[in-house]
Amino acid sequence: MKPQLECLECSIRQALEAAELAGADLESRKEIALETLRILLEYDAHGSPAELSGAVHALVRRLTGNTDPYRKLKKDTIGIARQIYPSVAKGIEVQQDQLLCALKVSAVGNVIDAGVYGDLREVDLEAILREELTKGFAVCDVDVLRADLSGARSVVIVGDNAGETVFDGLLISEIKRMVGDSVNVFYGVRSIPTINDATMEDAVASGLDREAAVMSTGCDEPGLILEKADPDFVKLYMEADIVISKGQGNYEGLSNSKDRGVYFLLKAKCGPVARDLGVKMGDYVFIRK
Amino acid sequence: MKPQLECLECSIRQALEAAELAGADLESRKEIALETLRILLEYDAHGSPAELSGAVHALVRRLTGNTDPYRKLKKDTIGIARQIYPSVAKGIEVQQDQLLCALKVSAVGNVIDAGVYGDLREVDLEAILREELTKGFAVCDVDVLRADLSGARSVVIVGDNAGETVFDGLLISEIKRMVGDSVNVFYGVRSIPTINDATMEDAVASGLDREAAVMSTGCDEPGLILEKADPDFVKLYMEADIVISKGQGNYEGLSNSKDRGVYFLLKAKCGPVARDLGVKMGDYVFIRK
Repeated sequence: MKPQLECLECSIRQALEAAELAGADLESRKEIALETLRILLEYDAHGSPAELSGAVHALVRRLTGNTDPYRKLKKDTIGIARQIYPSVAKGIEVQQDQLLCALKVSAVGNVIDAGVYGDLREVDLEAILREELTKGFAVCDVDVLRADLSGARSVVIVGDNAGETVFDGLLISEIKRMVGDSVNVFYGVRSIPTINDATMEDAVASGLDREAAVMSTGCDEPGLILEKADPDFVKLYMEADIVISKGQGNYEGLSNSKDRGVYFLLKAKCGPVARDLGVKMGDYVFIRK
Repeated sequence: MKPQLECLECSIRQALEAAELAGADLESRKEIALETLRILLEYDAHGSPAELSGAVHALVRRLTGNTDPYRKLKKDTIGIARQIYPSVAKGIEVQQDQLLCALKVSAVGNVIDAGVYGDLREVDLEAILREELTKGFAVCDVDVLRADLSGARSVVIVGDNAGETVFDGLLISEIKRMVGDSVNVFYGVRSIPTINDATMEDAVASGLDREAAVMSTGCDEPGLILEKADPDFVKLYMEADIVISKGQGNYEGLSNSKDRGVYFLLKAKCGPVARDLGVKMGDYVFIRK
Protein backbone atom coordinates (compact mmCIF):
# COMPACT_ATOMS: atom_id res chain seq x y z
CA MET A 1 0.00 0.00 0.00
CA LYS A 2 1.09 3.56 -0.71
CA PRO A 3 1.78 6.13 2.02
CA GLN A 4 -1.37 8.01 2.99
CA LEU A 5 -1.89 11.58 4.20
CA GLU A 6 -2.27 10.33 7.79
CA CYS A 7 1.31 9.04 7.54
CA LEU A 8 2.60 12.64 7.56
CA GLU A 9 1.44 13.36 11.12
CA CYS A 10 2.59 9.93 12.30
CA SER A 11 6.03 10.35 10.67
CA ILE A 12 6.72 13.63 12.46
CA ARG A 13 5.67 12.12 15.77
CA GLN A 14 7.93 9.11 15.14
CA ALA A 15 10.87 11.30 14.15
CA LEU A 16 10.63 13.43 17.30
CA GLU A 17 10.16 10.43 19.59
CA ALA A 18 13.09 8.60 18.05
CA ALA A 19 15.20 11.76 18.32
CA GLU A 20 14.36 12.05 22.01
CA LEU A 21 15.13 8.39 22.64
CA ALA A 22 18.42 8.91 20.78
CA GLY A 23 19.28 11.62 23.29
CA ALA A 24 19.25 14.45 20.73
CA ASP A 25 19.43 18.00 22.10
CA LEU A 26 16.93 20.68 21.06
CA GLU A 27 19.07 21.95 18.17
CA SER A 28 19.46 18.45 16.78
CA ARG A 29 15.74 17.72 17.25
CA LYS A 30 14.90 20.88 15.29
CA GLU A 31 17.20 19.79 12.47
CA ILE A 32 15.60 16.34 12.49
CA ALA A 33 12.11 17.87 12.40
CA LEU A 34 12.93 20.12 9.44
CA GLU A 35 14.66 17.31 7.52
CA THR A 36 11.65 15.10 8.22
CA LEU A 37 9.37 17.76 6.72
CA ARG A 38 11.57 17.73 3.59
CA ILE A 39 11.29 13.94 3.38
CA LEU A 40 7.51 14.25 3.79
CA LEU A 41 7.25 16.69 0.88
CA GLU A 42 8.18 13.63 -1.23
CA TYR A 43 6.06 11.17 0.76
CA ASP A 44 4.25 10.00 -2.34
CA ALA A 45 7.48 8.85 -3.97
CA HIS A 46 7.84 6.11 -1.35
CA GLY A 47 6.39 2.72 -2.22
CA SER A 48 4.81 2.17 1.19
CA PRO A 49 4.42 3.72 4.63
CA ALA A 50 7.13 1.34 5.84
CA GLU A 51 9.61 2.82 3.34
CA LEU A 52 8.64 6.37 4.31
CA SER A 53 9.04 5.49 7.97
CA GLY A 54 12.33 3.75 7.14
CA ALA A 55 13.65 6.96 5.59
CA VAL A 56 12.62 8.98 8.67
CA HIS A 57 14.29 6.60 11.12
CA ALA A 58 17.42 6.38 8.97
CA LEU A 59 17.54 10.19 9.12
CA VAL A 60 17.33 10.13 12.93
CA ARG A 61 20.12 7.54 13.12
CA ARG A 62 22.29 9.58 10.74
CA LEU A 63 21.76 12.97 12.40
CA THR A 64 22.09 11.72 15.99
CA GLY A 65 24.85 9.17 15.39
CA ASN A 66 22.78 6.78 17.53
CA THR A 67 22.41 3.55 15.55
CA ASP A 68 19.79 2.04 17.86
CA PRO A 69 17.69 4.59 19.81
CA TYR A 70 15.20 1.89 20.85
CA ARG A 71 17.85 -0.51 22.18
CA LYS A 72 16.91 -0.26 25.87
CA LEU A 73 13.20 -0.21 25.08
CA LYS A 74 13.54 -3.41 23.06
CA LYS A 75 15.54 -5.11 25.83
CA ASP A 76 12.90 -4.10 28.40
CA THR A 77 9.94 -5.30 26.34
CA ILE A 78 11.63 -8.61 25.56
CA GLY A 79 12.16 -8.98 29.31
CA ILE A 80 8.49 -8.29 30.08
CA ALA A 81 7.36 -10.66 27.34
CA ARG A 82 9.62 -13.43 28.66
CA GLN A 83 8.27 -12.90 32.17
CA ILE A 84 4.65 -13.49 31.15
CA TYR A 85 5.55 -16.17 28.56
CA PRO A 86 5.13 -19.20 30.90
CA SER A 87 1.60 -18.32 31.98
CA VAL A 88 0.59 -17.49 28.40
CA ALA A 89 2.07 -20.82 27.18
CA LYS A 90 0.07 -22.72 29.83
CA GLY A 91 -3.03 -20.84 28.75
CA ILE A 92 -2.61 -22.14 25.19
CA GLU A 93 -2.19 -25.78 26.28
CA VAL A 94 -5.67 -25.94 27.76
CA GLN A 95 -7.41 -24.43 24.72
CA GLN A 96 -9.52 -26.53 22.40
CA ASP A 97 -8.14 -24.78 19.31
CA GLN A 98 -4.48 -24.37 20.20
CA LEU A 99 -3.50 -23.09 16.75
CA LEU A 100 -6.09 -20.32 16.92
CA CYS A 101 -4.93 -19.42 20.39
CA ALA A 102 -1.25 -19.36 19.37
CA LEU A 103 -2.13 -17.08 16.44
CA LYS A 104 -3.98 -14.80 18.84
CA VAL A 105 -1.06 -14.67 21.26
CA SER A 106 1.30 -13.87 18.40
CA ALA A 107 -1.07 -11.17 17.10
CA VAL A 108 -1.45 -9.64 20.55
CA GLY A 109 2.35 -9.53 20.80
CA ASN A 110 2.05 -7.13 17.86
CA VAL A 111 0.77 -4.40 20.20
CA ILE A 112 4.40 -3.96 21.32
CA ASP A 113 4.89 -1.32 18.64
CA ALA A 114 6.74 1.87 19.43
CA GLY A 115 6.06 3.14 15.90
CA VAL A 116 2.37 3.28 16.71
CA TYR A 117 2.14 3.64 20.50
CA GLY A 118 5.10 5.96 20.96
CA ASP A 119 7.05 5.67 24.17
CA LEU A 120 6.37 2.17 25.44
CA ARG A 121 8.06 3.07 28.73
CA GLU A 122 4.90 4.92 29.67
CA VAL A 123 2.68 1.94 29.02
CA ASP A 124 1.73 -0.97 31.32
CA LEU A 125 2.51 -3.59 28.72
CA GLU A 126 1.52 -6.65 30.74
CA ALA A 127 -1.93 -5.20 31.55
CA ILE A 128 -2.43 -4.29 27.89
CA LEU A 129 -1.42 -7.75 26.67
CA ARG A 130 -3.77 -9.51 29.09
CA GLU A 131 -6.64 -7.20 28.13
CA GLU A 132 -5.96 -7.66 24.41
CA LEU A 133 -5.94 -11.46 24.72
CA THR A 134 -9.65 -11.33 25.54
CA LYS A 135 -10.50 -9.91 22.09
CA GLY A 136 -11.30 -12.02 19.02
CA PHE A 137 -10.19 -11.77 15.38
CA ALA A 138 -12.27 -9.59 13.02
CA VAL A 139 -11.05 -11.76 10.13
CA CYS A 140 -9.62 -15.21 10.79
CA ASP A 141 -8.39 -17.65 8.15
CA VAL A 142 -7.25 -20.20 10.73
CA ASP A 143 -9.01 -23.06 8.95
CA VAL A 144 -7.27 -22.22 5.67
CA LEU A 145 -3.96 -22.27 7.52
CA ARG A 146 -4.85 -25.55 9.23
CA ALA A 147 -5.41 -27.17 5.82
CA ASP A 148 -2.24 -25.59 4.39
CA LEU A 149 -0.13 -26.75 7.33
CA SER A 150 -0.97 -30.38 6.67
CA GLY A 151 2.10 -31.69 4.88
CA ALA A 152 3.90 -28.33 4.91
CA ARG A 153 7.66 -28.66 4.85
CA SER A 154 8.72 -25.05 5.19
CA VAL A 155 7.22 -22.03 6.92
CA VAL A 156 8.60 -18.50 6.76
CA ILE A 157 7.54 -16.03 9.45
CA VAL A 158 8.38 -12.40 8.74
CA GLY A 159 8.96 -10.88 12.18
CA ASP A 160 7.97 -7.40 13.31
CA ASN A 161 8.65 -5.92 16.74
CA ALA A 162 11.09 -6.98 19.45
CA GLY A 163 9.13 -8.47 22.35
CA GLU A 164 6.45 -9.76 19.97
CA THR A 165 9.23 -12.19 19.00
CA VAL A 166 8.81 -14.01 22.32
CA PHE A 167 5.16 -14.78 21.57
CA ASP A 168 6.02 -15.76 17.99
CA GLY A 169 8.03 -18.55 19.63
CA LEU A 170 4.74 -19.98 20.93
CA LEU A 171 3.25 -19.91 17.42
CA ILE A 172 6.29 -21.73 16.04
CA SER A 173 6.00 -24.36 18.81
CA GLU A 174 2.35 -24.89 17.96
CA ILE A 175 3.11 -25.21 14.23
CA LYS A 176 5.78 -27.83 15.01
CA ARG A 177 3.43 -29.68 17.36
CA MET A 178 0.86 -29.89 14.55
CA VAL A 179 3.12 -30.61 11.57
CA GLY A 180 5.99 -32.41 13.30
CA ASP A 181 9.62 -31.50 13.88
CA SER A 182 10.48 -32.16 10.23
CA VAL A 183 8.98 -28.78 9.24
CA ASN A 184 11.60 -26.10 8.61
CA VAL A 185 10.65 -22.77 10.16
CA PHE A 186 12.51 -19.63 9.14
CA TYR A 187 12.13 -16.35 10.99
CA GLY A 188 13.04 -13.15 9.13
CA VAL A 189 14.35 -10.11 11.02
CA ARG A 190 15.45 -6.59 10.02
CA SER A 191 19.05 -6.23 8.83
CA ILE A 192 19.78 -3.37 11.27
CA PRO A 193 17.83 -1.67 14.10
CA THR A 194 14.88 0.44 12.94
CA ILE A 195 12.26 1.65 15.45
CA ASN A 196 11.78 -1.24 17.90
CA ASP A 197 11.68 -3.87 15.16
CA ALA A 198 13.39 -7.16 15.87
CA THR A 199 16.95 -7.72 14.65
CA MET A 200 19.00 -10.91 14.91
CA GLU A 201 20.15 -9.85 18.39
CA ASP A 202 16.57 -9.33 19.57
CA ALA A 203 15.41 -12.65 18.12
CA VAL A 204 18.21 -14.46 19.93
CA ALA A 205 17.43 -12.58 23.18
CA SER A 206 13.84 -13.78 22.74
CA GLY A 207 15.00 -17.40 22.46
CA LEU A 208 13.74 -17.67 18.88
CA ASP A 209 16.97 -19.21 17.61
CA ARG A 210 16.04 -22.38 19.52
CA GLU A 211 12.72 -22.59 17.64
CA ALA A 212 13.56 -21.44 14.12
CA ALA A 213 16.33 -20.54 11.70
CA VAL A 214 16.57 -16.80 12.28
CA MET A 215 17.82 -14.84 9.30
CA SER A 216 18.03 -11.27 8.15
CA THR A 217 15.58 -10.22 5.45
CA GLY A 218 18.22 -7.76 4.31
CA CYS A 219 15.81 -4.86 4.82
CA ASP A 220 16.55 -1.91 7.09
CA GLU A 221 13.03 -0.53 6.66
CA PRO A 222 10.39 -1.34 9.33
CA GLY A 223 8.73 -3.71 6.86
CA LEU A 224 9.69 -6.34 4.27
CA ILE A 225 10.33 -4.68 0.91
CA LEU A 226 10.92 -7.54 -1.52
CA GLU A 227 12.74 -5.40 -4.09
CA LYS A 228 15.29 -4.42 -1.47
CA ALA A 229 15.49 -7.74 0.39
CA ASP A 230 18.39 -10.17 0.43
CA PRO A 231 18.09 -12.58 -2.55
CA ASP A 232 18.63 -15.59 -0.26
CA PHE A 233 15.72 -14.51 1.91
CA VAL A 234 13.53 -13.75 -1.12
CA LYS A 235 14.22 -17.26 -2.46
CA LEU A 236 13.16 -18.81 0.86
CA TYR A 237 10.12 -16.54 0.97
CA MET A 238 9.05 -17.45 -2.57
CA GLU A 239 9.59 -21.20 -2.14
CA ALA A 240 8.13 -21.67 1.35
CA ASP A 241 4.91 -23.66 1.63
CA ILE A 242 3.56 -21.04 4.02
CA VAL A 243 4.47 -17.41 4.70
CA ILE A 244 3.13 -15.63 7.77
CA SER A 245 3.78 -11.88 7.79
CA LYS A 246 3.59 -10.18 11.18
CA GLY A 247 2.49 -6.60 11.78
CA GLN A 248 1.66 -3.43 9.91
CA GLY A 249 5.08 -2.66 8.45
CA ASN A 250 5.36 -5.98 6.64
CA TYR A 251 1.74 -5.70 5.50
CA GLU A 252 2.44 -2.23 4.10
CA GLY A 253 5.42 -3.58 2.17
CA LEU A 254 3.83 -6.83 0.94
CA SER A 255 0.13 -6.03 0.52
CA ASN A 256 0.42 -5.11 -3.15
CA SER A 257 2.71 -8.01 -4.04
CA LYS A 258 0.98 -10.63 -6.15
CA ASP A 259 3.99 -12.97 -6.21
CA ARG A 260 2.61 -15.49 -3.76
CA GLY A 261 -0.04 -16.12 -1.11
CA VAL A 262 0.76 -14.69 2.30
CA TYR A 263 -0.98 -14.91 5.68
CA PHE A 264 -1.05 -11.51 7.37
CA LEU A 265 -1.26 -11.60 11.16
CA LEU A 266 -1.60 -8.19 12.80
CA LYS A 267 -3.53 -5.69 14.79
CA ALA A 268 -4.78 -2.83 12.58
CA LYS A 269 -3.36 0.03 14.60
CA CYS A 270 -3.89 3.01 12.31
CA GLY A 271 -6.52 4.30 9.90
CA PRO A 272 -4.67 3.67 6.62
CA VAL A 273 -3.93 -0.01 7.37
CA ALA A 274 -7.43 -0.63 8.76
CA ARG A 275 -8.96 0.94 5.63
CA ASP A 276 -6.73 -1.10 3.32
CA LEU A 277 -7.79 -4.29 5.12
CA GLY A 278 -11.45 -3.27 5.30
CA VAL A 279 -11.56 -3.57 9.08
CA LYS A 280 -11.94 -1.18 12.02
CA MET A 281 -9.01 0.40 13.77
CA GLY A 282 -7.99 -1.84 16.66
CA ASP A 283 -9.23 -5.02 14.98
CA TYR A 284 -7.14 -8.19 15.01
CA VAL A 285 -6.72 -9.77 11.60
CA PHE A 286 -5.45 -13.12 10.34
CA ILE A 287 -6.04 -13.11 6.61
CA ARG A 288 -4.63 -14.97 3.64
CA LYS A 289 -4.04 -12.82 0.59
CA MET B 1 5.21 31.64 23.55
CA LYS B 2 7.02 30.48 20.43
CA PRO B 3 5.84 27.52 18.34
CA GLN B 4 7.33 24.26 19.59
CA LEU B 5 8.32 21.09 17.74
CA GLU B 6 5.13 19.38 18.95
CA CYS B 7 3.19 22.02 17.00
CA LEU B 8 4.35 20.45 13.72
CA GLU B 9 2.46 17.20 14.26
CA CYS B 10 -0.58 19.06 15.57
CA SER B 11 -0.60 21.47 12.61
CA ILE B 12 -0.69 18.67 10.05
CA ARG B 13 -3.53 16.99 11.91
CA GLN B 14 -5.45 20.27 12.07
CA ALA B 15 -4.87 20.98 8.37
CA LEU B 16 -6.18 17.58 7.30
CA GLU B 17 -9.17 17.71 9.64
CA ALA B 18 -10.10 21.20 8.50
CA ALA B 19 -9.70 20.11 4.87
CA GLU B 20 -12.02 17.18 5.44
CA LEU B 21 -14.60 19.37 7.20
CA ALA B 22 -14.31 21.80 4.28
CA GLY B 23 -15.31 18.97 1.96
CA ALA B 24 -11.98 18.87 0.11
CA ASP B 25 -11.41 15.95 -2.25
CA LEU B 26 -8.26 13.79 -2.06
CA GLU B 27 -6.34 15.88 -4.59
CA SER B 28 -7.11 19.08 -2.71
CA ARG B 29 -6.27 17.45 0.64
CA LYS B 30 -2.89 16.40 -0.79
CA GLU B 31 -2.20 19.94 -1.95
CA ILE B 32 -3.19 21.27 1.49
CA ALA B 33 -0.92 18.73 3.19
CA LEU B 34 2.09 19.65 1.05
CA GLU B 35 1.49 23.39 1.44
CA THR B 36 1.17 22.86 5.19
CA LEU B 37 4.56 21.11 5.21
CA ARG B 38 6.01 24.16 3.45
CA ILE B 39 4.49 26.47 6.08
CA LEU B 40 5.92 24.21 8.79
CA LEU B 41 9.44 24.47 7.36
CA GLU B 42 9.23 28.11 8.54
CA TYR B 43 7.39 27.30 11.79
CA ASP B 44 10.01 29.12 13.83
CA ALA B 45 9.34 32.41 12.04
CA HIS B 46 5.85 32.58 13.58
CA GLY B 47 5.53 34.47 16.84
CA SER B 48 3.30 31.89 18.52
CA PRO B 49 1.56 28.56 17.92
CA ALA B 50 -1.66 30.52 17.36
CA GLU B 51 -0.09 32.40 14.45
CA LEU B 52 1.29 29.17 12.96
CA SER B 53 -2.12 27.57 13.33
CA GLY B 54 -3.71 30.70 11.86
CA ALA B 55 -1.54 30.39 8.76
CA VAL B 56 -2.50 26.73 8.36
CA HIS B 57 -6.24 27.39 8.65
CA ALA B 58 -6.00 30.39 6.32
CA LEU B 59 -4.37 28.04 3.80
CA VAL B 60 -7.24 25.56 4.11
CA ARG B 61 -9.80 28.33 3.62
CA ARG B 62 -7.89 29.65 0.59
CA LEU B 63 -7.34 26.29 -1.12
CA THR B 64 -10.83 24.92 -0.47
CA GLY B 65 -12.76 28.15 -0.98
CA ASN B 66 -14.67 27.24 2.19
CA THR B 67 -14.53 30.27 4.48
CA ASP B 68 -15.92 28.44 7.52
CA PRO B 69 -15.31 24.68 7.57
CA TYR B 70 -16.35 24.45 11.23
CA ARG B 71 -19.65 26.29 10.77
CA LYS B 72 -21.95 23.34 11.44
CA LEU B 73 -19.76 22.06 14.23
CA LYS B 74 -19.88 25.45 15.94
CA LYS B 75 -23.64 25.63 15.57
CA ASP B 76 -24.03 22.14 17.04
CA THR B 77 -21.76 22.78 20.01
CA ILE B 78 -23.48 26.08 20.80
CA GLY B 79 -26.76 24.15 20.74
CA ILE B 80 -25.47 21.50 23.14
CA ALA B 81 -24.01 24.14 25.45
CA ARG B 82 -27.32 26.06 25.50
CA GLN B 83 -29.17 22.82 26.30
CA ILE B 84 -27.14 22.14 29.43
CA TYR B 85 -26.82 25.81 30.37
CA PRO B 86 -29.88 25.96 32.69
CA SER B 87 -28.79 23.07 34.89
CA VAL B 88 -25.23 24.37 35.02
CA ALA B 89 -26.52 27.85 35.96
CA LYS B 90 -28.61 26.37 38.77
CA GLY B 91 -25.54 24.43 39.94
CA ILE B 92 -23.63 27.71 40.34
CA GLU B 93 -26.37 29.40 42.36
CA VAL B 94 -26.12 26.88 45.19
CA GLN B 95 -22.32 27.09 45.49
CA GLN B 96 -20.65 28.81 48.40
CA ASP B 97 -18.03 30.40 46.15
CA GLN B 98 -20.07 31.34 43.09
CA LEU B 99 -17.21 33.24 41.42
CA LEU B 100 -14.92 30.22 41.66
CA CYS B 101 -17.68 28.01 40.28
CA ALA B 102 -18.40 30.39 37.40
CA LEU B 103 -14.69 30.45 36.53
CA LYS B 104 -14.66 26.67 36.57
CA VAL B 105 -17.70 26.43 34.30
CA SER B 106 -16.11 28.91 31.90
CA ALA B 107 -12.81 26.97 31.97
CA VAL B 108 -14.59 23.68 31.39
CA GLY B 109 -16.32 25.24 28.40
CA ASN B 110 -12.80 25.54 27.02
CA VAL B 111 -12.75 21.78 26.33
CA ILE B 112 -14.94 22.54 23.30
CA ASP B 113 -11.82 22.87 21.17
CA ALA B 114 -11.67 21.32 17.73
CA GLY B 115 -8.06 22.48 17.33
CA VAL B 116 -7.04 20.14 20.12
CA TYR B 117 -9.70 17.39 20.20
CA GLY B 118 -10.18 17.10 16.46
CA ASP B 119 -13.58 16.14 15.20
CA LEU B 120 -15.98 17.13 17.98
CA ARG B 121 -18.77 15.28 16.18
CA GLU B 122 -17.25 12.05 17.49
CA VAL B 123 -17.24 13.24 21.07
CA ASP B 124 -20.01 13.07 23.72
CA LEU B 125 -19.64 16.70 24.71
CA GLU B 126 -22.22 16.77 27.48
CA ALA B 127 -20.70 13.75 29.23
CA ILE B 128 -17.23 15.29 28.94
CA LEU B 129 -18.40 18.63 30.32
CA ARG B 130 -20.11 17.03 33.33
CA GLU B 131 -17.04 14.88 34.04
CA GLU B 132 -14.68 17.87 33.70
CA LEU B 133 -16.76 19.97 36.13
CA THR B 134 -15.75 17.59 38.92
CA LYS B 135 -12.06 18.53 38.56
CA GLY B 136 -10.37 21.37 40.45
CA PHE B 137 -7.92 24.07 39.34
CA ALA B 138 -4.19 23.27 39.47
CA VAL B 139 -3.51 27.01 39.84
CA CYS B 140 -6.28 29.36 40.97
CA ASP B 141 -5.92 33.10 41.49
CA VAL B 142 -9.62 33.54 42.30
CA ASP B 143 -8.88 35.58 45.44
CA VAL B 144 -6.68 37.98 43.46
CA LEU B 145 -9.54 38.42 40.99
CA ARG B 146 -12.04 38.89 43.81
CA ALA B 147 -9.97 41.78 45.16
CA ASP B 148 -9.45 43.24 41.69
CA LEU B 149 -13.16 43.06 40.89
CA SER B 150 -14.02 45.28 43.82
CA GLY B 151 -14.58 48.67 42.23
CA ALA B 152 -13.75 47.50 38.73
CA ARG B 153 -15.45 49.54 36.00
CA SER B 154 -14.43 47.61 32.91
CA VAL B 155 -13.69 43.97 32.21
CA VAL B 156 -12.48 42.59 28.89
CA ILE B 157 -12.90 38.89 28.22
CA VAL B 158 -10.98 37.54 25.24
CA GLY B 159 -13.13 34.71 23.94
CA ASP B 160 -11.93 31.43 22.51
CA ASN B 161 -14.16 28.66 21.13
CA ALA B 162 -17.78 28.74 20.00
CA GLY B 163 -19.89 26.85 22.55
CA GLU B 164 -17.54 27.87 25.35
CA THR B 165 -19.13 31.29 24.75
CA VAL B 166 -22.38 30.07 26.32
CA PHE B 167 -20.63 29.30 29.60
CA ASP B 168 -18.69 32.55 29.46
CA GLY B 169 -22.16 34.16 29.74
CA LEU B 170 -22.43 32.63 33.21
CA LEU B 171 -19.08 34.11 34.21
CA ILE B 172 -20.17 37.53 33.00
CA SER B 173 -23.44 37.23 34.98
CA GLU B 174 -21.49 36.35 38.09
CA ILE B 175 -19.11 39.30 37.61
CA LYS B 176 -22.09 41.63 37.24
CA ARG B 177 -23.78 40.11 40.28
CA MET B 178 -20.64 40.84 42.31
CA VAL B 179 -19.64 44.25 40.93
CA GLY B 180 -23.04 45.60 39.93
CA ASP B 181 -24.58 46.39 36.58
CA SER B 182 -22.47 49.52 36.23
CA VAL B 183 -19.47 47.41 35.20
CA ASN B 184 -18.79 47.45 31.47
CA VAL B 185 -18.01 44.00 30.12
CA PHE B 186 -16.49 43.63 26.65
CA TYR B 187 -16.20 40.29 24.94
CA GLY B 188 -13.61 39.96 22.13
CA VAL B 189 -14.17 37.55 19.25
CA ARG B 190 -12.18 36.59 16.12
CA SER B 191 -12.63 38.84 13.10
CA ILE B 192 -13.43 35.91 10.78
CA PRO B 193 -13.97 32.17 11.29
CA THR B 194 -10.83 30.22 12.18
CA ILE B 195 -11.08 26.64 13.48
CA ASN B 196 -14.13 26.59 15.76
CA ASP B 197 -13.24 29.87 17.44
CA ALA B 198 -16.08 32.24 18.25
CA THR B 199 -16.93 35.04 15.83
CA MET B 200 -19.51 37.77 16.28
CA GLU B 201 -22.16 35.45 14.82
CA ASP B 202 -21.31 32.68 17.29
CA ALA B 203 -21.30 35.07 20.24
CA VAL B 204 -24.74 36.33 19.27
CA ALA B 205 -26.01 32.76 18.78
CA SER B 206 -24.73 32.05 22.30
CA GLY B 207 -26.73 34.97 23.70
CA LEU B 208 -23.57 36.83 24.75
CA ASP B 209 -24.70 40.12 23.19
CA ARG B 210 -27.28 40.36 26.00
CA GLU B 211 -24.53 40.10 28.62
CA ALA B 212 -21.63 42.05 27.15
CA ALA B 213 -20.51 44.38 24.38
CA VAL B 214 -19.28 41.86 21.83
CA MET B 215 -16.59 43.17 19.53
CA SER B 216 -14.07 41.85 17.05
CA THR B 217 -10.45 41.76 18.20
CA GLY B 218 -9.52 42.26 14.57
CA CYS B 219 -7.50 39.04 14.59
CA ASP B 220 -8.15 36.16 12.21
CA GLU B 221 -5.67 33.92 14.03
CA PRO B 222 -7.00 31.46 16.64
CA GLY B 223 -5.54 33.67 19.36
CA LEU B 224 -5.20 37.36 20.22
CA ILE B 225 -2.09 38.81 18.59
CA LEU B 226 -1.83 42.38 19.89
CA GLU B 227 0.41 43.59 17.05
CA LYS B 228 -2.23 42.53 14.53
CA ALA B 229 -5.32 43.45 16.55
CA ASP B 230 -7.75 46.27 15.87
CA PRO B 231 -6.47 49.51 17.54
CA ASP B 232 -9.92 50.10 19.11
CA PHE B 233 -9.84 46.69 20.72
CA VAL B 234 -6.22 47.11 21.83
CA LYS B 235 -7.15 50.42 23.50
CA LEU B 236 -10.00 48.74 25.40
CA TYR B 237 -7.71 45.85 26.30
CA MET B 238 -4.96 48.15 27.61
CA GLU B 239 -7.31 50.40 29.58
CA ALA B 240 -9.60 47.78 31.11
CA ASP B 241 -9.42 47.23 34.86
CA ILE B 242 -9.44 43.50 34.31
CA VAL B 243 -8.63 41.30 31.31
CA ILE B 244 -9.56 37.62 31.31
CA SER B 245 -8.05 35.66 28.43
CA LYS B 246 -9.75 32.37 27.61
CA GLY B 247 -8.07 29.29 26.18
CA GLN B 248 -4.76 28.20 24.74
CA GLY B 249 -4.70 30.28 21.57
CA ASN B 250 -5.02 33.58 23.42
CA TYR B 251 -2.47 32.42 25.99
CA GLU B 252 -0.05 31.54 23.20
CA GLY B 253 -0.45 35.00 21.72
CA LEU B 254 -0.40 36.99 24.97
CA SER B 255 1.88 35.02 27.30
CA ASN B 256 5.03 36.95 26.38
CA SER B 257 3.33 40.33 26.43
CA LYS B 258 4.46 42.45 29.40
CA ASP B 259 2.12 45.34 28.55
CA ARG B 260 -0.38 44.66 31.30
CA GLY B 261 -1.60 42.08 33.82
CA VAL B 262 -3.90 39.41 32.38
CA TYR B 263 -5.86 36.56 33.95
CA PHE B 264 -5.52 33.40 31.89
CA LEU B 265 -8.37 30.92 32.22
CA LEU B 266 -7.88 27.68 30.36
CA LYS B 267 -7.38 23.97 30.32
CA ALA B 268 -3.80 23.05 29.40
CA LYS B 269 -4.58 20.73 26.54
CA CYS B 270 -1.17 20.14 24.98
CA GLY B 271 2.42 19.63 26.10
CA PRO B 272 3.86 22.98 25.00
CA VAL B 273 1.21 25.09 26.79
CA ALA B 274 1.32 22.91 29.94
CA ARG B 275 5.14 23.21 30.03
CA ASP B 276 4.99 26.97 29.54
CA LEU B 277 2.53 27.27 32.44
CA GLY B 278 4.42 24.80 34.61
CA VAL B 279 1.41 22.51 35.00
CA LYS B 280 0.48 19.02 33.84
CA MET B 281 -1.36 18.34 30.61
CA GLY B 282 -5.10 18.31 31.35
CA ASP B 283 -4.80 20.72 34.28
CA TYR B 284 -7.22 23.62 34.70
CA VAL B 285 -5.52 26.94 35.29
CA PHE B 286 -6.70 30.38 36.39
CA ILE B 287 -3.57 32.46 36.73
CA ARG B 288 -2.77 36.17 36.74
CA LYS B 289 0.37 37.08 34.81
